Amino acid sequence: MITLTPIAHIQNNRPQVADDHWGEVLSTITLVSEIAANTLDGIEAFSHLEIIFYMHQVPAHKATATVRHPRNNPDLPLLGTFAQRNKSRPNKIGLTTVELVARKDNTLTVKGLDAISGTPVLDIKPVMQEFEPKGELRQPDWTKVIMAQYW
Amino acid sequence: MITLTPIAHIQNNRPQVADDHWGEVLSTITLVSEIAANTLDGIEAFSHLEIIFYMHQVPAHKATATVRHPRNNPDLPLLGTFAQRNKSRPNKIGLTTVELVARKDNTLTVKGLDAISGTPVLDIKPVMQEFEPKGELRQPDWTKVIMAQYW
Repeated sequence: MITLTPIAHIQNNRPQVADDHWGEVLSTITLVSEIAANTLDGIEAFSHLEIIFYMHQVPAHKATATVRHPRNNPDLPLLGTFAQRNKSRPNKIGLTTVELVARKDNTLTVKGLDAISGTPVLDIKPVMQEFEPKGELRQPDWTKVIMAQYW
Repeated sequence: MITLTPIAHIQNNRPQVADDHWGEVLSTITLVSEIAANTLDGIEAFSHLEIIFYMHQVPAHKATATVRHPRNNPDLPLLGTFAQRNKSRPNKIGLTTVELVARKDNTLTVKGLDAISGTPVLDIKPVMQEFEPKGELRQPDWTKVIMAQYW
């Protein structure tokens, strides 16, 4: 068992879980009082951040599913949890690369974070070119269907 | 407080923490017995995966540091925890994009995972082009110094 503590919380205008149209959403990420504001010092030099968050509202029966049709669409293949990025996964961890818009004191403003308002944040990492995928990306066709209007 | 459980463990030939030369390291990621092998079904169609892992050997005094010179090099700027990707961070979470080499039953073989042998895994996500950074990346010059021999 691993015990973690939120380092921050997300606030935006998306209170409900929804599948699409996350690209233009602006969110603030505000550190909890136990985390010093200087932990963000120097982050402004990066254009993009990876936000690791805890999808706290996912119910237990979804977190323990093993296979699923993406978006429960029977026209798409039946796929394992770890072949998908959706919220039905054991540790309820979300991960998204966002654009950093601003930092002020202990608060970041970011664009394109697909998490509902109130979501706890577990970690924030700056995006470096050297951590991007090496070589050409290959992905199956069903991803194009589900991502068509995601952003 | 958030309680998580490892979904898998990493095995490779790197038992010790080390700064550089991770690019050619091959690792296996084997699911724990409580996680069914079919959670990996369909993952072979992806070339790259994001591995979210728990850096279990990081001591508490490092996890609570707020600022640090990258690699403790005083020639580099003093930067906050979340402006860096190193292991000194509150929830000890690591995140790396790897190349998927093979999947057999409940075990993945991956290339370029910068985690020591025995590290617990919290989540595995397939890399999709649509989740890559939007727009041009910007990052500070000090990152080039620390990444010069990392892979």
